[in-house]
Amino acid sequence: MKLAQNVQNSRPGRRQWALGSTGPGSVSAAQVLSVIRNHDGVTRADISRIAGLSRSTVSQHVDTLICKGIVAETGYAKSSGGRRARLLRFNEDGGCVVAIDIGATSLDVGICNLDAKPMAVNSIELHQPSGPGQVIEDAYHMATDLLNSIGLTAEETRGVGLGVPAPVHFSTGTIVAPAILQGWDKYPLAKALKERFGCPAYVDNDANVMALGEQWAGEGKGVQNFMFVKLGTGIGAGIVCDGRLYRGSQGCAGDIGHIVIDGCDVACACGKKGCLEALAGGPAIARRAEAKARQDSTPILSTLLKERGSLTANDVGLAARGGDPAAAEIIKDTGYLIGRVLAKTIDFFNPSLILIGGGVAKAGDLLLASIRELVYQQSIPLATRDLVVQPSTLGDRAGVVGAAVLVLEKLYDS
Amino acid sequence: MKLAQNVQNSRPGRRQWALGSTGPGSVSAAQVLSVIRNHDGVTRADISRIAGLSRSTVSQHVDTLICKGIVAETGYAKSSGGRRARLLRFNEDGGCVVAIDIGATSLDVGICNLDAKPMAVNSIELHQPSGPGQVIEDAYHMATDLLNSIGLTAEETRGVGLGVPAPVHFSTGTIVAPAILQGWDKYPLAKALKERFGCPAYVDNDANVMALGEQWAGEGKGVQNFMFVKLGTGIGAGIVCDGRLYRGSQGCAGDIGHIVIDGCDVACACGKKGCLEALAGGPAIARRAEAKARQDSTPILSTLLKERGSLTANDVGLAARGGDPAAAEIIKDTGYLIGRVLAKTIDFFNPSLILIGGGVAKAGDLLLASIRELVYQQSIPLATRDLVVQPSTLGDRAGVVGAAVLVLEKLYDS
Repeated sequence: MKLAQNVQNSRPGRRQWALGSTGPGSVSAAQVLSVIRNHDGVTRADISRIAGLSRSTVSQHVDTLICKGIVAETGYAKSSGGRRARLLRFNEDGGCVVAIDIGATSLDVGICNLDAKPMAVNSIELHQPSGPGQVIEDAYHMATDLLNSIGLTAEETRGVGLGVPAPVHFSTGTIVAPAILQGWDKYPLAKALKERFGCPAYVDNDANVMALGEQWAGEGKGVQNFMFVKLGTGIGAGIVCDGRLYRGSQGCAGDIGHIVIDGCDVACACGKKGCLEALAGGPAIARRAEAKARQDSTPILSTLLKERGSLTANDVGLAARGGDPAAAEIIKDTGYLIGRVLAKTIDFFNPSLILIGGGVAKAGDLLLASIRELVYQQSIPLATRDLVVQPSTLGDRAGVVGAAVLVLEKLYDS
Repeated sequence: MKLAQNVQNSRPGRRQWALGSTGPGSVSAAQVLSVIRNHDGVTRADISRIAGLSRSTVSQHVDTLICKGIVAETGYAKSSGGRRARLLRFNEDGGCVVAIDIGATSLDVGICNLDAKPMAVNSIELHQPSGPGQVIEDAYHMATDLLNSIGLTAEETRGVGLGVPAPVHFSTGTIVAPAILQGWDKYPLAKALKERFGCPAYVDNDANVMALGEQWAGEGKGVQNFMFVKLGTGIGAGIVCDGRLYRGSQGCAGDIGHIVIDGCDVACACGKKGCLEALAGGPAIARRAEAKARQDSTPILSTLLKERGSLTANDVGLAARGGDPAAAEIIKDTGYLIGRVLAKTIDFFNPSLILIGGGVAKAGDLLLASIRELVYQQSIPLATRDLVVQPSTLGDRAGVVGAAVLVLEKLYDS
């Protein structure tokens, strides 16, 4: 549970209180929970003072939160003369959520507490083509085993959150026109999860979910405008704009993997030509390395290819770090392609932070340096004046934490 | 006053009530004004019912609005037995604002009412290099003449709004690192306007201001995610995201004129190479047409060049519409370049509407068709499923209307 430490002090950003809070009632409910979560024991009077809400409004919301098990009365405040007031604390262990991160080649399932901290996580490799029904079945059994392993039951599960490498119609949780997950088009993933798990289920695109995770518990905390860029089999970005996750009109905002590199005509699985993903996604890196290893003898790639018959993007990253010049060149070129596209999105979006994650990001410093080189060369200087481009700090766990956040936002907002 | 008709029925979108409304007080004040603006005569009881606010809160806000002259009591509601209640109406003529639209080659000044409707507008050509001090002086005298012409006085002016083709630090109204307006860098435009006009002044980037204008009174009304693309000497976009103008971390979001076209190395005034603006901005179109008209004899361009010694982008548009094949080719290529860049921003931002405006947009249907062709060829199909790409309906007046909105948003929010 190395990661639990990383996210120990996670506190929600301002986002979830602003989002979906359409009436004064939900605004004040969110304010009340926010004050409780950000203090280690507060009284109803404290909340009233801090949030500027009437005592009766505070009491009403606190009662609801206690009923839901999200807030608990624990101990008493110091006496100020009269009857000692009860202290309220956020009850992060008042239930759990199942958090699922589907990748093109992996399935991660976690059980998180009500602060999105992973308490137990398991991962398996996925071998395509796994249909969505099979993946849900696998996830269900993994979740059941994990719950058992930490002594929790299905009844304590408040909901299921899931990130998937495909465009998602968020309000229905349905997959729309995926480039990678062939056969998943129009699959009502949230509905199927809800039926299998018997609790509320929420589904979003993987990069969006990872951006949520970083906003909740990582480097994105409190950052108004940032992007989480996922580099894997596919390439995508989650966009946080003015403190809120931005999904776009069709739910496909941030689909940077299909931004066309001018003058390139490599066919992409989406039907277009020259997409970033077709040139810099995991399979493209592997194909290029295999071709190079066959054509010329390279110290590491050729040996690996002989041993295994094929290569992965991970092999190329390892070979580059091990000193294989052909591998290093491929990683560098990949970084340049990604940086070229990011520079364009920076001119458009002007974020203050870009977090790089996903399996391909593990190629390390050479990839990051090449991305940064092109970003600083091609973006307008004003847009990069205070821009930070750095690896995701949550790493592999951004997807699980973010999937938990999907559920928690709904839970705390309702 | 042809335009006044276009914007006659303008009603605010939801934006200004959501923006900057941080406390319950400002939320309810905005709700009250919104109800009054959207109804042709309402009573305090009506507002209380429609907005779900207490009678005392409504009365308090109505009193303030009447004091400010933004709302007026006009007539009585039908009697329901007791004393007849007063009807409240939005007093769009309870003052005016000065709205200034600076272009690279033009200066438009308008006097607008409190619903951002232009009551009088004047335009002059600007001959670079005009310093900011001279432009403010010109604008001041134009505004004074316009106020006189419609029988208003400076005392009735609630504020000055201004759009300028440069990045702007919005909270201070200072120009930052402009590519076009050489010599304006770090100029405190809002401060200088405030001093000269003796009233509050607000400054923003021209494309942002035009997006605000379209959101207030044009096709952008009620649209959650859209872009206003200004094609002129410079190229830029105003971004409305989740119903709010998005300015970015450094205030330079939407600077699409400096997105690099891969593989192009034409030098841009910003110091980079291959920027869209350097290839498809007004001067680039004119230069290309001049070269073509000198090299080959073309039916219209060559004649125009002989007569005048130089060409403008406007000449090229006119020649293309008149049947000059060389001019048509230049306009088409320009559209392809713009479409190529827009396709990338669509994959990233997934808007439902793109409005095209600015002087170069007057080249007309051929330019628009070429932009659309590349957009539909290169964007992901899901992002363009319901996307509308169309010319700005406010046209030349988007800048003046938007500059007025800059002031009104502050006035109604305070």
